[in-house]
Amino acid sequence: MTLRPGSVAAQPSLAAFLVIGNEILTGSIQDANTPWLAQLLYRQGVDLVRVEYIPDEKADIASTLLRLKERVGCDGVIFTSGGIGPTHDDITYESIAHAFGVPLEVHQPTVEAMKAHYEPQGKEVNESRLRMATLPAGCEVLTTPDMWVPMACIKGVYILPGIPRLFKAMITANSQRFHGAAYLSTTLFSDDGEGDVAQALRDIAAEHPDVRIGSYPSTADGQGYSVKLQLEARSQDLLDKAKNAISNALTVRT
Amino acid sequence: MTLRPGSVAAQPSLAAFLVIGNEILTGSIQDANTPWLAQLLYRQGVDLVRVEYIPDEKADIASTLLRLKERVGCDGVIFTSGGIGPTHDDITYESIAHAFGVPLEVHQPTVEAMKAHYEPQGKEVNESRLRMATLPAGCEVLTTPDMWVPMACIKGVYILPGIPRLFKAMITANSQRFHGAAYLSTTLFSDDGEGDVAQALRDIAAEHPDVRIGSYPSTADGQGYSVKLQLEARSQDLLDKAKNAISNALTVRT
Repeated sequence: MTLRPGSVAAQPSLAAFLVIGNEILTGSIQDANTPWLAQLLYRQGVDLVRVEYIPDEKADIASTLLRLKERVGCDGVIFTSGGIGPTHDDITYESIAHAFGVPLEVHQPTVEAMKAHYEPQGKEVNESRLRMATLPAGCEVLTTPDMWVPMACIKGVYILPGIPRLFKAMITANSQRFHGAAYLSTTLFSDDGEGDVAQALRDIAAEHPDVRIGSYPSTADGQGYSVKLQLEARSQDLLDKAKNAISNALTVRT
Repeated sequence: MTLRPGSVAAQPSLAAFLVIGNEILTGSIQDANTPWLAQLLYRQGVDLVRVEYIPDEKADIASTLLRLKERVGCDGVIFTSGGIGPTHDDITYESIAHAFGVPLEVHQPTVEAMKAHYEPQGKEVNESRLRMATLPAGCEVLTTPDMWVPMACIKGVYILPGIPRLFKAMITANSQRFHGAAYLSTTLFSDDGEGDVAQALRDIAAEHPDVRIGSYPSTADGQGYSVKLQLEARSQDLLDKAKNAISNALTVRT
Protein backbone atom coordinates (compact mmCIF):
# COMPACT_ATOMS: atom_id res chain seq x y z
CA MET A 1 0.00 0.00 0.00
CA THR A 2 1.65 3.18 -1.13
CA LEU A 3 0.79 6.40 0.61
CA ARG A 4 1.79 8.66 -2.27
CA PRO A 5 -1.12 9.66 -4.53
CA GLY A 6 -0.87 8.28 -8.01
CA SER A 7 2.13 6.06 -7.44
CA VAL A 8 1.91 2.33 -8.09
CA ALA A 9 2.94 -0.29 -5.56
CA ALA A 10 5.55 -2.77 -6.77
CA GLN A 11 3.56 -5.56 -5.16
CA PRO A 12 -0.22 -5.62 -5.09
CA SER A 13 -1.42 -4.32 -1.76
CA LEU A 14 -3.79 -6.21 0.50
CA ALA A 15 -6.80 -4.97 2.43
CA ALA A 16 -9.37 -6.37 4.84
CA PHE A 17 -12.67 -4.97 6.11
CA LEU A 18 -14.00 -5.54 9.61
CA VAL A 19 -17.72 -4.82 9.99
CA ILE A 20 -18.57 -4.41 13.67
CA GLY A 21 -22.13 -4.60 14.99
CA ASN A 22 -24.75 -6.97 16.39
CA GLU A 23 -27.38 -5.26 14.22
CA ILE A 24 -25.73 -6.64 11.06
CA LEU A 25 -25.54 -10.19 12.44
CA THR A 26 -29.22 -10.20 13.43
CA GLY A 27 -30.24 -8.88 10.01
CA SER A 28 -31.76 -5.77 11.58
CA ILE A 29 -29.55 -3.53 9.45
CA GLN A 30 -28.00 -4.48 6.13
CA ASP A 31 -24.32 -3.71 5.50
CA ALA A 32 -24.28 -1.44 2.45
CA ASN A 33 -20.60 -0.55 2.71
CA THR A 34 -18.96 -3.79 1.61
CA PRO A 35 -20.03 -3.80 -2.07
CA TRP A 36 -19.09 -0.13 -2.39
CA LEU A 37 -15.69 -0.57 -0.72
CA ALA A 38 -14.96 -3.77 -2.68
CA GLN A 39 -15.56 -1.99 -5.97
CA LEU A 40 -13.49 1.06 -4.99
CA LEU A 41 -10.52 -1.05 -3.89
CA TYR A 42 -10.73 -3.22 -6.99
CA ARG A 43 -10.72 -0.14 -9.26
CA GLN A 44 -7.71 1.19 -7.39
CA GLY A 45 -5.75 -2.05 -7.61
CA VAL A 46 -5.92 -3.08 -3.96
CA ASP A 47 -6.73 -6.75 -3.24
CA LEU A 48 -9.52 -7.07 -0.68
CA VAL A 49 -8.70 -10.48 0.81
CA ARG A 50 -11.24 -10.70 3.60
CA VAL A 51 -14.43 -9.19 5.01
CA GLU A 52 -15.61 -10.18 8.49
CA TYR A 53 -18.82 -9.31 10.33
CA ILE A 54 -18.41 -9.57 14.08
CA PRO A 55 -20.41 -8.59 17.18
CA ASP A 56 -19.80 -5.61 19.52
CA GLU A 57 -17.45 -7.57 21.80
CA LYS A 58 -14.14 -6.14 22.89
CA ALA A 59 -12.10 -9.36 23.00
CA ASP A 60 -13.48 -10.50 19.64
CA ILE A 61 -12.76 -7.14 17.98
CA ALA A 62 -9.20 -7.07 19.33
CA SER A 63 -8.26 -10.64 18.43
CA THR A 64 -9.86 -10.42 14.98
CA LEU A 65 -8.02 -7.20 14.26
CA LEU A 66 -4.65 -8.70 15.13
CA ARG A 67 -5.35 -11.77 12.99
CA LEU A 68 -6.36 -9.60 10.02
CA LYS A 69 -3.27 -7.43 10.55
CA GLU A 70 -1.12 -10.51 10.16
CA ARG A 71 -3.07 -11.50 7.04
CA VAL A 72 -2.63 -8.19 5.17
CA GLY A 73 0.96 -7.68 6.28
CA CYS A 74 2.74 -4.51 7.33
CA ASP A 75 1.98 -2.69 4.06
CA GLY A 76 -1.69 -3.70 4.07
CA VAL A 77 -4.67 -1.77 5.34
CA ILE A 78 -7.70 -2.69 7.42
CA PHE A 79 -10.91 -0.73 7.44
CA THR A 80 -13.38 -1.01 10.30
CA SER A 81 -16.98 0.19 10.32
CA GLY A 82 -19.29 0.73 13.27
CA GLY A 83 -19.07 1.21 17.02
CA ILE A 84 -17.71 4.77 17.20
CA GLY A 85 -20.86 6.54 18.45
CA PRO A 86 -21.48 7.78 22.01
CA THR A 87 -23.44 4.87 23.51
CA HIS A 88 -22.51 1.86 25.66
CA ASP A 89 -22.37 -0.51 22.69
CA ASP A 90 -19.87 1.71 20.85
CA ILE A 91 -16.56 0.14 21.84
CA THR A 92 -14.46 0.16 18.69
CA TYR A 93 -11.91 2.80 19.76
CA GLU A 94 -11.27 1.14 23.10
CA SER A 95 -11.10 -2.33 21.54
CA ILE A 96 -8.55 -1.26 18.93
CA ALA A 97 -6.47 0.60 21.53
CA HIS A 98 -6.58 -2.58 23.63
CA ALA A 99 -5.46 -4.70 20.65
CA PHE A 100 -2.39 -2.52 20.09
CA GLY A 101 -1.64 -1.99 23.78
CA VAL A 102 -2.02 1.79 23.72
CA PRO A 103 -4.18 4.02 25.94
CA LEU A 104 -7.05 6.22 24.78
CA GLU A 105 -6.64 9.98 24.79
CA VAL A 106 -8.89 12.94 24.05
CA HIS A 107 -8.08 14.45 20.66
CA GLN A 108 -8.56 18.18 21.16
CA PRO A 109 -9.01 19.25 17.49
CA THR A 110 -11.87 16.73 17.23
CA VAL A 111 -13.42 18.14 20.42
CA GLU A 112 -13.31 21.64 18.90
CA ALA A 113 -14.83 20.43 15.62
CA MET A 114 -17.54 18.59 17.56
CA LYS A 115 -18.36 21.71 19.60
CA ALA A 116 -18.65 23.78 16.43
CA HIS A 117 -21.10 21.17 15.14
CA TYR A 118 -23.24 20.53 18.24
CA GLU A 119 -23.35 23.85 20.11
CA PRO A 120 -25.25 25.77 17.40
CA GLN A 121 -27.93 23.03 17.72
CA GLY A 122 -28.12 23.67 21.49
CA LYS A 123 -26.52 20.30 22.25
CA GLU A 124 -23.65 20.10 24.70
CA VAL A 125 -20.47 18.08 24.29
CA ASN A 126 -21.14 15.94 27.37
CA GLU A 127 -19.21 12.95 28.67
CA SER A 128 -20.91 10.55 26.26
CA ARG A 129 -20.20 12.67 23.20
CA LEU A 130 -16.62 13.15 24.38
CA ARG A 131 -16.16 9.40 23.86
CA MET A 132 -16.39 10.10 20.11
CA ALA A 133 -13.23 12.25 20.39
CA THR A 134 -11.36 9.82 22.64
CA LEU A 135 -9.06 7.97 20.26
CA PRO A 136 -6.23 5.43 20.45
CA ALA A 137 -3.09 7.31 21.50
CA GLY A 138 -0.65 7.95 18.67
CA CYS A 139 -3.21 7.59 15.89
CA GLU A 140 -3.15 9.82 12.84
CA VAL A 141 -6.40 11.77 12.50
CA LEU A 142 -7.68 12.43 8.99
CA THR A 143 -10.51 14.82 8.29
CA THR A 144 -13.25 15.12 5.71
CA PRO A 145 -14.59 18.45 4.40
CA ASP A 146 -17.79 19.64 6.14
CA MET A 147 -17.68 16.81 8.67
CA TRP A 148 -16.52 16.72 12.27
CA VAL A 149 -16.22 12.91 12.53
CA PRO A 150 -12.53 11.93 12.60
CA MET A 151 -11.04 9.12 10.54
CA ALA A 152 -8.49 7.74 12.98
CA CYS A 153 -5.70 5.62 11.54
CA ILE A 154 -3.41 3.49 13.68
CA LYS A 155 -0.91 0.96 12.30
CA GLY A 156 -2.73 0.79 8.96
CA VAL A 157 -6.19 0.42 10.57
CA TYR A 158 -8.70 3.04 9.40
CA ILE A 159 -11.59 3.43 11.84
CA LEU A 160 -14.90 4.49 10.27
CA PRO A 161 -18.56 4.84 11.20
CA GLY A 162 -21.10 2.33 9.89
CA ILE A 163 -23.56 4.90 8.49
CA PRO A 164 -23.03 4.55 4.72
CA ARG A 165 -23.28 8.28 3.92
CA LEU A 166 -20.44 9.05 6.35
CA PHE A 167 -18.41 5.92 5.53
CA LYS A 168 -18.38 6.68 1.81
CA ALA A 169 -17.68 10.42 2.19
CA MET A 170 -14.75 9.82 4.53
CA ILE A 171 -13.07 7.18 2.37
CA THR A 172 -13.70 9.16 -0.79
CA ALA A 173 -12.06 12.24 0.74
CA ASN A 174 -8.94 10.21 1.48
CA SER A 175 -9.05 7.69 -1.35
CA GLN A 176 -5.68 8.71 -2.82
CA ARG A 177 -4.16 6.72 0.06
CA PHE A 178 -5.53 3.46 -1.18
CA HIS A 179 -3.78 2.58 -4.41
CA GLY A 180 -2.12 -0.57 -5.66
CA ALA A 181 -1.37 -1.86 -9.14
CA ALA A 182 -4.69 -1.75 -10.95
CA TYR A 183 -6.30 -4.79 -12.55
CA LEU A 184 -7.32 -4.86 -16.17
CA SER A 185 -10.32 -7.01 -16.93
CA THR A 186 -12.37 -8.36 -19.76
CA THR A 187 -15.63 -10.28 -19.85
CA LEU A 188 -16.66 -13.08 -22.21
CA PHE A 189 -20.02 -14.81 -22.53
CA SER A 190 -20.88 -18.36 -23.55
CA ASP A 191 -24.14 -20.06 -24.44
CA ASP A 192 -22.70 -23.44 -23.43
CA GLY A 193 -23.26 -24.69 -19.89
CA GLU A 194 -20.62 -24.33 -17.17
CA GLY A 195 -20.11 -28.07 -17.22
CA ASP A 196 -19.37 -27.97 -20.97
CA VAL A 197 -16.68 -25.31 -20.76
CA ALA A 198 -15.14 -26.42 -17.47
CA GLN A 199 -12.43 -28.80 -18.73
CA ALA A 200 -11.05 -26.34 -21.28
CA LEU A 201 -11.10 -23.55 -18.70
CA ARG A 202 -9.25 -25.66 -16.17
CA ASP A 203 -6.43 -26.27 -18.66
CA ILE A 204 -6.26 -22.60 -19.68
CA ALA A 205 -6.27 -21.42 -16.05
CA ALA A 206 -3.36 -23.76 -15.30
CA GLU A 207 -1.41 -22.36 -18.28
CA HIS A 208 -2.08 -18.71 -17.27
CA PRO A 209 -1.44 -18.60 -13.51
CA ASP A 210 -1.20 -14.78 -13.39
CA VAL A 211 -4.67 -14.32 -14.86
CA ARG A 212 -7.70 -14.77 -12.64
CA ILE A 213 -10.42 -16.53 -14.61
CA GLY A 214 -13.79 -16.49 -12.89
CA SER A 215 -16.70 -18.50 -14.24
CA TYR A 216 -20.23 -17.46 -13.25
CA PRO A 217 -23.39 -19.21 -14.40
CA SER A 218 -26.36 -16.97 -15.17
CA THR A 219 -28.39 -16.52 -12.00
CA ALA A 220 -31.78 -16.07 -13.67
CA ASP A 221 -33.52 -16.81 -16.95
CA GLY A 222 -33.41 -14.15 -19.62
CA GLN A 223 -29.88 -12.89 -18.98
CA GLY A 224 -28.98 -13.87 -22.56
CA TYR A 225 -26.07 -16.15 -21.73
CA SER A 226 -25.31 -19.37 -19.86
CA VAL A 227 -21.90 -18.55 -18.43
CA LYS A 228 -20.05 -15.28 -17.88
CA LEU A 229 -16.25 -15.48 -17.83
CA GLN A 230 -14.43 -12.70 -16.04
CA LEU A 231 -10.69 -12.40 -16.79
CA GLU A 232 -8.45 -10.19 -14.67
CA ALA A 233 -4.72 -9.50 -14.88
CA ARG A 234 -2.28 -6.74 -14.10
CA SER A 235 -1.01 -6.42 -17.70
CA GLN A 236 -2.77 -6.16 -21.06
CA ASP A 237 -0.43 -8.73 -22.57
CA LEU A 238 -1.28 -11.39 -19.97
CA LEU A 239 -4.96 -10.61 -20.36
CA ASP A 240 -4.87 -10.83 -24.17
CA LYS A 241 -3.05 -14.16 -24.12
CA ALA A 242 -5.61 -15.78 -21.84
CA LYS A 243 -8.49 -14.25 -23.80
CA ASN A 244 -7.09 -15.64 -27.08
CA ALA A 245 -6.62 -19.07 -25.55
CA ILE A 246 -10.26 -19.10 -24.45
CA SER A 247 -11.52 -17.78 -27.80
CA ASN A 248 -9.61 -20.56 -29.60
CA ALA A 249 -10.90 -23.31 -27.34
CA LEU A 250 -14.54 -22.29 -26.84
CA THR A 251 -17.39 -20.51 -28.57
CA VAL A 252 -17.56 -17.19 -26.74
CA ARG A 253 -18.47 -13.59 -27.45
CA THR A 254 -17.60 -10.29 -25.79
CA MET B 1 -28.39 -26.60 17.86
CA THR B 2 -31.18 -29.09 18.12
CA LEU B 3 -31.97 -31.33 15.20
CA ARG B 4 -35.56 -32.03 16.21
CA PRO B 5 -38.13 -29.74 14.59
CA GLY B 6 -39.85 -27.42 17.01
CA SER B 7 -37.77 -28.29 20.04
CA VAL B 8 -35.88 -25.59 21.89
CA ALA B 9 -32.18 -25.81 22.70
CA ALA B 10 -31.27 -25.47 26.37
CA GLN B 11 -28.45 -23.14 25.39
CA PRO B 12 -28.68 -20.69 22.51
CA SER B 13 -27.00 -22.19 19.47
CA LEU B 14 -24.27 -20.50 17.49
CA ALA B 15 -23.83 -20.21 13.75
CA ALA B 16 -21.30 -18.79 11.30
CA PHE B 17 -21.48 -18.13 7.57
CA LEU B 18 -18.54 -18.50 5.21
CA VAL B 19 -19.01 -16.74 1.85
CA ILE B 20 -16.51 -18.12 -0.67
CA GLY B 21 -15.66 -16.32 -3.90
CA ASN B 22 -13.29 -13.80 -5.48
CA GLU B 23 -16.25 -12.22 -7.26
CA ILE B 24 -17.65 -10.97 -3.94
CA LEU B 25 -14.33 -9.51 -2.82
CA THR B 26 -13.87 -7.60 -6.08
CA GLY B 27 -17.40 -6.21 -5.90
CA SER B 28 -18.30 -7.89 -9.19
CA ILE B 29 -21.19 -9.74 -7.53
CA GLN B 30 -23.00 -8.64 -4.38
CA ASP B 31 -23.67 -11.18 -1.64
CA ALA B 32 -27.45 -11.24 -1.23
CA ASN B 33 -27.53 -14.26 1.05
CA THR B 34 -26.16 -12.79 4.29
CA PRO B 35 -29.07 -10.44 5.15
CA TRP B 36 -31.58 -13.19 4.37
CA LEU B 37 -29.74 -15.84 6.40
CA ALA B 38 -29.13 -13.42 9.30
CA GLN B 39 -32.86 -12.67 9.55
CA LEU B 40 -33.87 -16.32 9.30
CA LEU B 41 -31.45 -17.41 12.03
CA TYR B 42 -32.46 -14.51 14.27
CA ARG B 43 -36.15 -15.41 13.92
CA GLN B 44 -35.32 -19.02 14.75
CA GLY B 45 -33.28 -18.14 17.83
CA VAL B 46 -29.85 -19.05 16.49
CA ASP B 47 -27.02 -16.59 17.20
CA LEU B 48 -25.07 -15.76 14.05
CA VAL B 49 -21.70 -14.84 15.52
CA ARG B 50 -19.64 -14.34 12.40
CA VAL B 51 -19.77 -13.87 8.64
CA GLU B 52 -16.56 -14.08 6.59
CA TYR B 53 -15.98 -13.40 2.90
CA ILE B 54 -12.90 -15.20 1.60
CA PRO B 55 -11.30 -15.92 -1.79
CA ASP B 56 -11.36 -19.22 -3.73
CA GLU B 57 -8.17 -20.53 -2.10
CA LYS B 58 -7.97 -24.04 -0.71
CA ALA B 59 -5.68 -23.39 2.25
CA ASP B 60 -7.64 -20.27 3.25
CA ILE B 61 -11.00 -22.08 3.05
CA ALA B 62 -9.72 -25.02 5.12
CA SER B 63 -8.06 -22.98 7.87
CA THR B 64 -10.97 -20.54 8.12
CA LEU B 65 -13.43 -23.40 8.40
CA LEU B 66 -11.54 -25.02 11.26
CA ARG B 67 -11.28 -21.69 13.11
CA LEU B 68 -15.02 -21.07 12.70
CA LYS B 69 -15.75 -24.61 13.84
CA GLU B 70 -13.90 -23.89 17.06
CA ARG B 71 -15.82 -20.61 17.44
CA VAL B 72 -19.33 -22.10 17.14
CA GLY B 73 -18.53 -25.23 19.16
CA CYS B 74 -19.60 -28.80 18.58
CA ASP B 75 -23.33 -27.97 18.68
CA GLY B 76 -22.99 -25.01 16.35
CA VAL B 77 -23.45 -24.89 12.59
CA ILE B 78 -21.53 -23.33 9.74
CA PHE B 79 -23.03 -22.50 6.37
CA THR B 80 -20.86 -22.03 3.31
CA SER B 81 -21.88 -20.49 -0.01
CA GLY B 82 -20.15 -20.68 -3.38
CA GLY B 83 -17.58 -22.80 -5.13
CA ILE B 84 -19.59 -25.98 -5.80
CA GLY B 85 -20.02 -25.62 -9.56
CA PRO B 86 -18.15 -27.60 -12.25
CA THR B 87 -15.29 -25.20 -13.11
CA HIS B 88 -11.65 -24.91 -12.04
CA ASP B 89 -12.40 -22.17 -9.49
CA ASP B 90 -15.01 -24.33 -7.73
CA ILE B 91 -12.98 -25.93 -4.95
CA THR B 92 -15.24 -25.85 -1.91
CA TYR B 93 -15.90 -29.61 -1.64
CA GLU B 94 -12.22 -30.50 -1.94
CA SER B 95 -11.20 -27.73 0.50
CA ILE B 96 -13.68 -28.85 3.16
CA ALA B 97 -12.71 -32.51 2.71
CA HIS B 98 -9.09 -31.41 3.12
CA ALA B 99 -9.93 -29.47 6.30
CA PHE B 100 -11.50 -32.53 7.90
CA GLY B 101 -8.95 -34.99 6.54
CA VAL B 102 -11.44 -37.09 4.56
CA PRO B 103 -11.33 -38.12 0.88
CA LEU B 104 -13.85 -37.12 -1.77
CA GLU B 105 -16.19 -39.71 -3.18
CA VAL B 106 -18.83 -39.78 -5.89
CA HIS B 107 -22.35 -39.71 -4.41
CA GLN B 108 -24.37 -41.96 -6.68
CA PRO B 109 -27.89 -40.67 -5.84
CA THR B 110 -26.72 -37.16 -6.77
CA VAL B 111 -25.30 -38.48 -10.06
CA GLU B 112 -28.69 -40.06 -10.85
CA ALA B 113 -30.55 -36.84 -9.97
CA MET B 114 -28.12 -34.85 -12.11
CA LYS B 115 -28.61 -37.19 -15.07
CA ALA B 116 -32.38 -36.87 -14.79
CA HIS B 117 -31.91 -33.09 -14.88
CA TYR B 118 -29.30 -32.73 -17.65
CA GLU B 119 -29.98 -35.56 -20.09
CA PRO B 120 -33.45 -34.31 -21.18
CA GLN B 121 -31.66 -31.04 -22.12
CA GLY B 122 -29.20 -33.00 -24.29
CA LYS B 123 -26.32 -32.26 -21.88
CA GLU B 124 -24.08 -35.08 -20.74
CA VAL B 125 -22.87 -35.68 -17.18
CA ASN B 126 -19.21 -35.30 -18.15
CA GLU B 127 -16.13 -35.26 -15.93
CA SER B 128 -16.59 -31.59 -15.02
CA ARG B 129 -20.23 -31.99 -14.02
CA LEU B 130 -19.34 -35.11 -12.06
CA ARG B 131 -17.30 -32.84 -9.75
CA MET B 132 -20.63 -31.44 -8.53
CA ALA B 133 -21.54 -34.91 -7.21
CA THR B 134 -18.11 -35.63 -5.72
CA LEU B 135 -18.59 -34.87 -2.03
CA PRO B 136 -16.58 -35.19 1.19
CA ALA B 137 -16.74 -38.85 2.27
CA GLY B 138 -19.14 -39.51 5.13
CA CYS B 139 -21.23 -36.40 4.62
CA GLU B 140 -24.98 -36.45 5.04
CA VAL B 141 -26.75 -35.43 1.83
CA LEU B 142 -29.96 -33.43 2.17
CA THR B 143 -32.25 -32.80 -0.76
CA THR B 144 -34.63 -30.08 -1.83
CA PRO B 145 -37.87 -30.71 -3.75
CA ASP B 146 -37.54 -30.20 -7.53
CA MET B 147 -33.80 -29.64 -7.33
CA TRP B 148 -30.88 -31.97 -8.04
CA VAL B 149 -28.23 -29.88 -6.21
CA PRO B 150 -27.25 -31.67 -2.97
CA MET B 151 -26.93 -29.94 0.39
CA ALA B 152 -23.97 -31.81 1.84
CA CYS B 153 -23.50 -31.63 5.60
CA ILE B 154 -20.32 -32.74 7.33
CA LYS B 155 -19.56 -32.14 11.02
CA GLY B 156 -22.16 -29.36 11.23
CA VAL B 157 -20.97 -27.64 8.04
CA TYR B 158 -23.74 -27.15 5.45
CA ILE B 159 -22.35 -26.64 1.94
CA LEU B 160 -24.49 -24.47 -0.33
CA PRO B 161 -24.31 -22.77 -3.73
CA GLY B 162 -23.91 -18.99 -3.92
CA ILE B 163 -26.82 -18.39 -6.31
CA PRO B 164 -29.44 -16.80 -4.03
CA ARG B 165 -32.44 -18.60 -5.54
CA LEU B 166 -30.85 -21.99 -4.82
CA PHE B 167 -29.32 -20.97 -1.49
CA LYS B 168 -32.64 -19.79 -0.10
CA ALA B 169 -34.68 -22.72 -1.43
CA MET B 170 -32.26 -25.29 0.00
CA ILE B 171 -32.09 -23.75 3.48
CA THR B 172 -35.84 -23.16 3.54
CA ALA B 173 -36.50 -26.81 2.70
CA ASN B 174 -34.39 -27.88 5.67
CA SER B 175 -34.96 -24.96 8.03
CA GLN B 176 -36.44 -27.10 10.81
CA ARG B 177 -32.87 -28.12 11.56
CA PHE B 178 -31.83 -24.63 12.56
CA HIS B 179 -33.61 -23.76 15.77
CA GLY B 180 -32.43 -22.29 19.04
CA ALA B 181 -34.22 -20.39 21.80
CA ALA B 182 -35.95 -17.51 20.05
CA TYR B 183 -35.34 -13.89 20.94
CA LEU B 184 -38.14 -11.53 21.87
CA SER B 185 -37.58 -7.94 20.89
CA THR B 186 -39.05 -4.51 21.22
CA THR B 187 -38.15 -1.19 19.65
CA LEU B 188 -38.25 2.29 21.20
CA PHE B 189 -37.68 5.65 19.55
CA SER B 190 -36.23 8.87 20.95
CA ASP B 191 -36.09 12.42 19.63
CA ASP B 192 -33.05 13.14 21.78
CA GLY B 193 -29.58 12.68 20.30
CA GLU B 194 -27.52 9.54 20.91
CA GLY B 195 -25.13 11.58 23.02
CA ASP B 196 -27.99 12.74 25.26
CA VAL B 197 -29.31 9.25 26.03
CA ALA B 198 -25.97 7.48 26.20
CA GLN B 199 -25.19 7.79 29.93
CA ALA B 200 -28.60 6.54 31.04
CA LEU B 201 -28.42 3.66 28.56
CA ARG B 202 -24.99 2.65 29.78
CA ASP B 203 -26.28 2.36 33.36
CA ILE B 204 -29.39 0.42 32.29
CA ALA B 205 -27.36 -1.94 30.10
CA ALA B 206 -25.07 -2.69 33.03
CA GLU B 207 -28.08 -3.45 35.26
CA HIS B 208 -29.70 -5.74 32.64
CA PRO B 209 -26.85 -7.94 31.37
CA ASP B 210 -29.18 -10.52 29.78
CA VAL B 211 -30.88 -7.93 27.59
CA ARG B 212 -29.14 -6.73 24.44
CA ILE B 213 -29.74 -3.00 24.06
CA GLY B 214 -28.72 -1.66 20.67
CA SER B 215 -28.71 2.07 19.96
CA TYR B 216 -28.89 3.22 16.33
CA PRO B 217 -28.90 6.85 15.21
CA SER B 218 -31.17 7.68 12.29
CA THR B 219 -29.23 7.25 9.07
CA ALA B 220 -31.05 9.89 7.05
CA ASP B 221 -33.23 12.95 7.54
CA GLY B 222 -36.98 12.43 7.67
CA GLN B 223 -36.98 9.10 9.50
CA GLY B 224 -39.01 10.78 12.27
CA TYR B 225 -36.68 9.97 15.16
CA SER B 226 -33.13 10.64 16.32
CA VAL B 227 -32.29 7.32 17.92
CA LYS B 228 -33.80 3.85 17.60
CA LEU B 229 -33.33 1.54 20.58
CA GLN B 230 -33.58 -2.18 19.90
CA LEU B 231 -34.07 -4.41 22.97
CA GLU B 232 -33.67 -8.18 22.72
CA ALA B 233 -33.97 -10.89 25.37
CA ARG B 234 -34.93 -14.52 25.64
CA SER B 235 -37.79 -13.90 28.12
CA GLN B 236 -40.68 -11.42 28.17
CA ASP B 237 -40.00 -10.63 31.81
CA LEU B 238 -36.39 -9.60 31.20
CA LEU B 239 -37.48 -7.56 28.20
CA ASP B 240 -40.23 -5.75 30.11
CA LYS B 241 -37.92 -4.86 33.00
CA ALA B 242 -35.35 -3.25 30.71
CA LYS B 243 -38.05 -1.48 28.71
CA ASN B 244 -39.57 -0.02 31.91
CA ALA B 245 -36.17 1.13 33.12
CA ILE B 246 -35.59 2.97 29.84
CA SER B 247 -39.10 4.48 29.82
CA ASN B 248 -38.54 5.79 33.36
CA ALA B 249 -35.15 7.32 32.56
CA LEU B 250 -35.72 8.75 29.08
CA THR B 251 -38.41 10.27 26.90
CA VAL B 252 -39.15 7.48 24.44
CA ARG B 253 -42.09 6.14 22.45
CA THR B 254 -42.85 2.77 20.87
